[in-house]
Amino acid sequence: MREVNRRPIGVFDSGIGGLTVVGELRRCLPQEDIIYLGDTARVPYGNKSEDTIKKFAIQDTEFLIKFQVKVIVVACNTVSSVALEFLKDRNLGIPIFGVVEPGVKVAINKSRSRKVGVIGTVATINSGAHKRLFPEDFEVIEKACPLFVPLAEEGINSGSIAKDVAELYLAHLREKVDTVILGCTHYPILKDVIRDVLGSEISLVDPAEEVAKEVRDFLLKGGLLNSGGGNLDIYLTDIPPHYLELIERFLGDRVNNLKKVDLENH
Amino acid sequence: MREVNRRPIGVFDSGIGGLTVVGELRRCLPQEDIIYLGDTARVPYGNKSEDTIKKFAIQDTEFLIKFQVKVIVVACNTVSSVALEFLKDRNLGIPIFGVVEPGVKVAINKSRSRKVGVIGTVATINSGAHKRLFPEDFEVIEKACPLFVPLAEEGINSGSIAKDVAELYLAHLREKVDTVILGCTHYPILKDVIRDVLGSEISLVDPAEEVAKEVRDFLLKGGLLNSGGGNLDIYLTDIPPHYLELIERFLGDRVNNLKKVDLENH
Repeated sequence: MREVNRRPIGVFDSGIGGLTVVGELRRCLPQEDIIYLGDTARVPYGNKSEDTIKKFAIQDTEFLIKFQVKVIVVACNTVSSVALEFLKDRNLGIPIFGVVEPGVKVAINKSRSRKVGVIGTVATINSGAHKRLFPEDFEVIEKACPLFVPLAEEGINSGSIAKDVAELYLAHLREKVDTVILGCTHYPILKDVIRDVLGSEISLVDPAEEVAKEVRDFLLKGGLLNSGGGNLDIYLTDIPPHYLELIERFLGDRVNNLKKVDLENH
Repeated sequence: MREVNRRPIGVFDSGIGGLTVVGELRRCLPQEDIIYLGDTARVPYGNKSEDTIKKFAIQDTEFLIKFQVKVIVVACNTVSSVALEFLKDRNLGIPIFGVVEPGVKVAINKSRSRKVGVIGTVATINSGAHKRLFPEDFEVIEKACPLFVPLAEEGINSGSIAKDVAELYLAHLREKVDTVILGCTHYPILKDVIRDVLGSEISLVDPAEEVAKEVRDFLLKGGLLNSGGGNLDIYLTDIPPHYLELIERFLGDRVNNLKKVDLENH
């Protein structure tokens, strides 16, 4: 059994969008080993039912636990919104961090008008998970943007289609809020077109940076920091052709250790 | 053990798009019992790898076989393109019908210029399954349209976004072909906007009708027609909220028997 501080950080997402969170973790904690799981065989989660999302979340978590991870980061907003408390209630003995609370925390600090927009998948928005965490005097406008994930995955992040879709989802937020939470790990890829439609005066909140800070603070306080690691292992349940390019776009770095895994027969 | 002709027809798809094929089967064979499986927990298949699609196709087929189906219809173009021969080679003892060959057959009959377009998912188009079936003197232009599935599922089948996306994918087919195969069960939902962009002189081929005819001919020849059935049972691996409306849109009828099933622990 390895010393706790030498153990890896486990991160999972429905697909590869969560690699944007891994990128932040590595900038913030370059000496940590990271195990990433992307359930690309069953992606997306965001338009599926709560029961199914919970079932998948358990399987993802159990996969990471086999690597003796010292902490688990749920990089998926959908799972963080729908199943985080459910995962915590299972008493796995491992601290679990989601991406919803950090995003809300940043938005509360940033917003001067106390009027905030939240955009995410259908499951995330239906859950109301973000709204619940705001103080009562905040006005929170939530909007599901189901076409943003396929647009990001197709690399359509500029041009008239991306702009029209962003307009369709976001027009009614303009002039109503001063801060918008990007409540899905895919959305940072569409940041430019979202800013275009919302205007430059609205702050866009990507929770990834805050998540990384919270994990660092936790490890620091617990004496759990690693000083000799830095490896990243990426496990995906499916690796379609030409996927490597997309993976590196989300991670913002080159990828060496990419492995395919079968969660159903692991 | 039921007499063979009293047994149901099994139909499966990655999601609920295959219900357009079920609609045709029911119009053509109203006395047949049908078991439909939609793998909605893992939808879509069309942007996943060949290995994963084959694995899912085996699980889908094995689920239907437990109902003693007399024939299996693969209503999914992606599976028909990537895994049909693979399924047939497993010698399951049950005739298996795909949707690729019927679509190509209709297109060959319809096209006067012998220039045909094929649109489908990334996996379908990468497989080249349609192109292989055309006579050598046909010019076949294939185009993957990955945003069409999410558009259809979001019910965005008209307006500027649908039109821009259709223009993006289809503009180069205009004036180059006289017939286009709708090589994905979701695409009939977008028929109007596809026709808008391609022009009214191009014939659109939806394989569903031809598939139903071929199944009927096969049952007729084999003395396998049922005369006392007519039930439809729909099994889905996930049932997200508000899904019933979408299901009925694809089927073109009301739904009574909808059940959730777990393929991994069945």
